Amino acid sequence: MIKIAIDAMGGDHAPKEQIAGALLALEKIDDIEITLFGDREMMKPFLKDHPRLHIVESDGVIPMGEKDPIQAIRSNRKSSMAMALTSVRQEEQDAIVSSGATQALIAGAHILVGRMKTMKRTAIAPVLPTALGKPFILLDSGGNIDIKPEFMVHQAHFATVYAKEVLGVEKPTLGLINIGTEEGKGRDIDNEVFALFKANPNLNFIGNVEPKDVLTPPCDILISDGFTANIVMKTIEGTARGMGAMLKEELSKGILGKLGLVLSLGNLKRFKRRMSPEEIGGAMIYGLKGVVIKAQGSSKAWGFYNAIRQAANVVRQDVIHKVSTIIEAEAKE
Amino acid sequence: MIKIAIDAMGGDHAPKEQIAGALLALEKIDDIEITLFGDREMMKPFLKDHPRLHIVESDGVIPMGEKDPIQAIRSNRKSSMAMALTSVRQEEQDAIVSSGATQALIAGAHILVGRMKTMKRTAIAPVLPTALGKPFILLDSGGNIDIKPEFMVHQAHFATVYAKEVLGVEKPTLGLINIGTEEGKGRDIDNEVFALFKANPNLNFIGNVEPKDVLTPPCDILISDGFTANIVMKTIEGTARGMGAMLKEELSKGILGKLGLVLSLGNLKRFKRRMSPEEIGGAMIYGLKGVVIKAQGSSKAWGFYNAIRQAANVVRQDVIHKVSTIIEAEAKE
Repeated sequence: MIKIAIDAMGGDHAPKEQIAGALLALEKIDDIEITLFGDREMMKPFLKDHPRLHIVESDGVIPMGEKDPIQAIRSNRKSSMAMALTSVRQEEQDAIVSSGATQALIAGAHILVGRMKTMKRTAIAPVLPTALGKPFILLDSGGNIDIKPEFMVHQAHFATVYAKEVLGVEKPTLGLINIGTEEGKGRDIDNEVFALFKANPNLNFIGNVEPKDVLTPPCDILISDGFTANIVMKTIEGTARGMGAMLKEELSKGILGKLGLVLSLGNLKRFKRRMSPEEIGGAMIYGLKGVVIKAQGSSKAWGFYNAIRQAANVVRQDVIHKVSTIIEAEAKE
Repeated sequence: MIKIAIDAMGGDHAPKEQIAGALLALEKIDDIEITLFGDREMMKPFLKDHPRLHIVESDGVIPMGEKDPIQAIRSNRKSSMAMALTSVRQEEQDAIVSSGATQALIAGAHILVGRMKTMKRTAIAPVLPTALGKPFILLDSGGNIDIKPEFMVHQAHFATVYAKEVLGVEKPTLGLINIGTEEGKGRDIDNEVFALFKANPNLNFIGNVEPKDVLTPPCDILISDGFTANIVMKTIEGTARGMGAMLKEELSKGILGKLGLVLSLGNLKRFKRRMSPEEIGGAMIYGLKGVVIKAQGSSKAWGFYNAIRQAANVVRQDVIHKVSTIIEAEAKE
């Protein structure tokens, strides 16, 4: 049995949608057991009995947008997030899924779960939709500014193993986010990373990729430092949101337009769903001793279920161990 | 009379759309004179007589995607782009508008027009549409990696004067692109620039802006180094293009969908137009002795006309001189 800890109190629609997502996962996935960490009274209206569902009472929740996430975790050890993270550290649970505050989850994961021995830096790697029908991994989206070229090689290995084992891509390809496609473009760090990627036999590096191809990427993984990839992720989000708002506004203009809009509703819903990262799952934090998945803060049951499914896949495929084996082997060369 | 040089041979639809845009500009704007630099034989089918239209015969065109743009300019001094740039240097013309290769235009502008004495680095500053109905300036979109905080202050002054004089914003506001809104976020350069902007009485600095607000910006100008802003610009482009393709694909599915699409065509066209930077004009290259405007490579007549209109406005408002006055005054303090 794969044991998954759920931070039931984190997220815009917690605990309702988190619990609904967990129940859906239990129904659809046979080899998982789920433990909800949360406030029993608040969870009660949404709970159903299930032989593979357990509950651990927690006290409090880490607030969103906490200015000092490390302090937030340290002073809330009984919160649903902190207790769920601790259960992974203690190997009571194999994975944790949380829709809670991102920076607190990263800080908490460092403190309470701990880093892999083989990786010096963690990275956040959401899996995003493309216009091509297949998703891609974008990392490091976490805003980690303190990066060295060799850390990015480790992160690239993690993403490669993840794409292969969890996304089912046979030979995952890797592109470096840059301002031009030619070799030699970009900053010093980009050129150093380019050289390391190119020389590494365990990576299928295709070279520089300009973000004007971000929804039609010629590879399965797009990588940059934590500042740049975070900027890319937020620009995708901002553009998609802005365009969505403009589209809605324009489409509902005039009588013909309104009629057209009604007829197109089904198609527009499918379009919206295709653009939604929730269809794919959450963002995994790479580089930790345990499996930590950040689901979107705005997750509804379906999105949260997808994040749980993803967590189970990562555990089932033994991703962390496989990544460590590659990095260790390279270190010995 | 404001004298505008047109690189008639640069662009995906040159010289046809460039000439049509120039003729439209002559019709709509009374105080301009236009000189087309191009191949007379190729231009002939599209030309019309106009008392304020002149022609200078050039020889050749700078190819798009040239690997060595400096060399491309140096070895093609008789090309339409090089000759048009030279005419600005010699003060025969007040401004140049070109849809030609971006990097060649930047290199050519450096070599043939020359930098302002007061600015050490040029910047490319497209004016982009937002979901709010008003545009914003994004700089430095040109990919100039070699940047110092004080250069960014100069660029911010340029954008501020531009927004005021050309876009008609009374008190233009400035935001620094960053991975979080709190002061102290980002890299060392971001924090240095933040401090300089904050302390500068000639700038209306509102602080850090995350690019998830890129289509609903809380300010008139978004600035970052040439690497980051170029990444933001290309990510907007890629997301918009990818979403557009997905929308088109989804909307035409099924019989109801097809009918809805037909009824929505007018609204969708308006949506597309709202998203198009061509409605606003081209990207100005800041920091040069003359007015150099890069129109989109794919410009049609309307987009090219808008770039000409913009060039005329910059000249009419004496933007370059006003920027120099501010920078010189600050240097004396």
